[in-house]
Amino acid sequence: MRNNSRRNFLKRGSLSGAALLTGSLQMNSAATRHVSTSEGEYMGNYAAPPMPNLRAAFIGVGARGGDHLKFLAGLPNTEVVAISDLYEDNVDKWKSIAVGVGGGTRHRRIATYHGDENRWRTMLSEVRPDVVFIATNWKNHAPMTIAAMEVGAHVCVEVPIAVTIDEMWDIVNTSERTRRHCMMMENVNYNRDELMFLNMVRQGVIGEPLHAEAAYIHELRFQMKEEERGTGSWRTHHYAERNGNLYPTHGLGPVAQYMNLARTEDNFNSLVSFSTPARGRQLYAGKNYPAEHKWNKLDFKGGDLNTVIIKTILGRTIMVQWDETSPRPYTRHNLLQGTRGTLAGFPTRVALEGGVPGATDSHHAWAQGEALDELRARYDHPLYKRLVAAAKGSGHGGMDGIMMYRIVECLQKGLPLDQNVYEGCFWSAVAPLSEASVAAEGMPQQFPDFTRGRWRETPALGIVSD
Amino acid sequence: MRNNSRRNFLKRGSLSGAALLTGSLQMNSAATRHVSTSEGEYMGNYAAPPMPNLRAAFIGVGARGGDHLKFLAGLPNTEVVAISDLYEDNVDKWKSIAVGVGGGTRHRRIATYHGDENRWRTMLSEVRPDVVFIATNWKNHAPMTIAAMEVGAHVCVEVPIAVTIDEMWDIVNTSERTRRHCMMMENVNYNRDELMFLNMVRQGVIGEPLHAEAAYIHELRFQMKEEERGTGSWRTHHYAERNGNLYPTHGLGPVAQYMNLARTEDNFNSLVSFSTPARGRQLYAGKNYPAEHKWNKLDFKGGDLNTVIIKTILGRTIMVQWDETSPRPYTRHNLLQGTRGTLAGFPTRVALEGGVPGATDSHHAWAQGEALDELRARYDHPLYKRLVAAAKGSGHGGMDGIMMYRIVECLQKGLPLDQNVYEGCFWSAVAPLSEASVAAEGMPQQFPDFTRGRWRETPALGIVSD
Repeated sequence: MRNNSRRNFLKRGSLSGAALLTGSLQMNSAATRHVSTSEGEYMGNYAAPPMPNLRAAFIGVGARGGDHLKFLAGLPNTEVVAISDLYEDNVDKWKSIAVGVGGGTRHRRIATYHGDENRWRTMLSEVRPDVVFIATNWKNHAPMTIAAMEVGAHVCVEVPIAVTIDEMWDIVNTSERTRRHCMMMENVNYNRDELMFLNMVRQGVIGEPLHAEAAYIHELRFQMKEEERGTGSWRTHHYAERNGNLYPTHGLGPVAQYMNLARTEDNFNSLVSFSTPARGRQLYAGKNYPAEHKWNKLDFKGGDLNTVIIKTILGRTIMVQWDETSPRPYTRHNLLQGTRGTLAGFPTRVALEGGVPGATDSHHAWAQGEALDELRARYDHPLYKRLVAAAKGSGHGGMDGIMMYRIVECLQKGLPLDQNVYEGCFWSAVAPLSEASVAAEGMPQQFPDFTRGRWRETPALGIVSD
Repeated sequence: MRNNSRRNFLKRGSLSGAALLTGSLQMNSAATRHVSTSEGEYMGNYAAPPMPNLRAAFIGVGARGGDHLKFLAGLPNTEVVAISDLYEDNVDKWKSIAVGVGGGTRHRRIATYHGDENRWRTMLSEVRPDVVFIATNWKNHAPMTIAAMEVGAHVCVEVPIAVTIDEMWDIVNTSERTRRHCMMMENVNYNRDELMFLNMVRQGVIGEPLHAEAAYIHELRFQMKEEERGTGSWRTHHYAERNGNLYPTHGLGPVAQYMNLARTEDNFNSLVSFSTPARGRQLYAGKNYPAEHKWNKLDFKGGDLNTVIIKTILGRTIMVQWDETSPRPYTRHNLLQGTRGTLAGFPTRVALEGGVPGATDSHHAWAQGEALDELRARYDHPLYKRLVAAAKGSGHGGMDGIMMYRIVECLQKGLPLDQNVYEGCFWSAVAPLSEASVAAEGMPQQFPDFTRGRWRETPALGIVSD
């Protein structure tokens, strides 16, 4: 019965896709631009040859890259071979930390690059690393990622994978042609609750998933104090110049994997989006800076909160919100609703038909807090249980360490990475597509199919244990 | 500064409105159909002549109307003059209750009508009541409302005010021509928390409101057990035949009044909507009824959960959800986010810039539970404080009684009602407009302006005290 209705949906999905192509939806120009066949290999479940000793380079060790470097440096059979950053002090600091972690036996010859905007290019050609970790400003993600793959390196790049749909196609084409991994490092997919929810969904606990909610609601106005250097110095301009859901992946990555999007079962189809008026950044600038300050000369166009609704090929929905400005507590929503129950975050809570064992009598009440202990004991993800001790002390409550451990493990053993290049592009594409929808007063926007129709070949991400 | 930016927004709003009219949005055919000038009086702040002794009739005393009748019967200077229902036992039961409440001095001559589908028409022409309370199935709301105004009665009708945009225009036109009130009884606007939030917004506690969230998420599959009579017997067919946000007003009514929509400041502009696949009702029917049962012969088209994003003239956004099927705890969301703080429901919680006095240090944490006691002491609505004792024991935790008290008070004193006919139509219009958007794969739908441009004349609903 269930398989049957799935098949019907796939059929309807295809019809609907055809209808969209004939004009009822606005096609992003870039969505059709690259529909030609690939020059290379389909990377949906790609496994590179094992690299038992992993030579890693880092571009950008400001707010984020340094922590990646430090954790990797402590893992077995890794070598930090190069560090590149605009600022000499960043390079010196993290080189010294890596050397310390190496204890005199590893990380002894770290090439360093700094000063000029393009020194990373010199690094790539001189060092030829196995893998490059990129944690720079958003506009540099695509050019650095592409150049690194061109010299034969695998790439792990911070979120979002790129800013425009064109850049994403260039990344996909380069990855396929060079047969190099490009993983966008969505660390939240490695958080304890997200891993547990994935495990619960895979075990059928909430039945068939129909709807999800994701968000990055995180008040970060203080970053505007980083006026000349650091995140605020460049992100503030994105808020001023762009209007959409600029940072969708932390909430969306996990729910996309719960739903097997771009992996066999279902995929992104279209989205609609509206933003609120833009108020908070201008108010903050007016309150904290003199009238002639550069922040007070910006015309902030990006609405304080943006809401997106994504429709999948199977007709399921995902509501995605973004707000880094409004005075409101942090949330990523992390909600998944199915035919037999609902999982949600912030606070973590579960409602199941028939109740949560030992906690609730029916789905009319949430189980949360200690009432989830029994569920955690049963459904904590094997990967979390295996790595929680190793990741202790790493960033964002340990999820950064689990991610890095897993990246290194997969590259060393020659396994597919947990997030492929297409997932990075689909998740990041919400930003430019929402900008297009907002600019067109809510008109639906079609997702490009970065897999060129081959997502049905990519297996669902399994419950990785060892 | 604030007024300035408001003016700029109004200007942009108008430009955008013009752009929409020239074709970038699909216009609902009914949106333009009635743009002719009204034949009657603008009812935005209408006050009828006082009716110190209020003669009230009731159509529909099944699941909901009886409670309205009972509470009204106990208020001073009211007379229950007629009861009409399909079923004799309903009529007898509530007549007897009204007589009991009257204690031999009031409600002594209640005309009763039952049996035939159209007996309510006979009642209207024979009894000529001052006000008619309508609590019947959704499809009867518009014809009954219109016929009651035609015989000179004011009308209070259950939610939604009507099912189609055409019906809503007919209600508006009839109300304006006959100069009769038509209030859709959105009882949630009289709930303690909603009244408190309204009071807080009016006092500027959260700054300028930019975004709201509303919902009716209430698992009601059990209503399908009402197979031949009662809510499930007719609502189930709505779920089967229609796909959209069928029941938006309980969540939306309160946030619309927080934002002064259709009252001076702002108004509904457009919406987009997506539904999930339809699963839960079919699963429930399959599990609980034999294969040949009528529920198992329906082809359920209405998605289990629908999500809408409304865009206002000022560019603010409202996310509205509906789900009466999925296993999930009840919520109306009741969220309002402003430039200085956020209010939310389920559970009731508040985050304010600088913290909630006596409870939190910053907007990064919610104050909830007992931590809200100080806020409640300061911001509980004067109407709630005045009527909480009188409404004790009335439906839905007392909100039904406060609403009825207020309706009777306004009619007796000749005051404008708290919800005008246009608000009932705007709030209810989300259902047919979301159906249109869902059918058109998310295409934005323009709200008709039921006020014909006169909403700027209607004052904001005040903080009514006495």
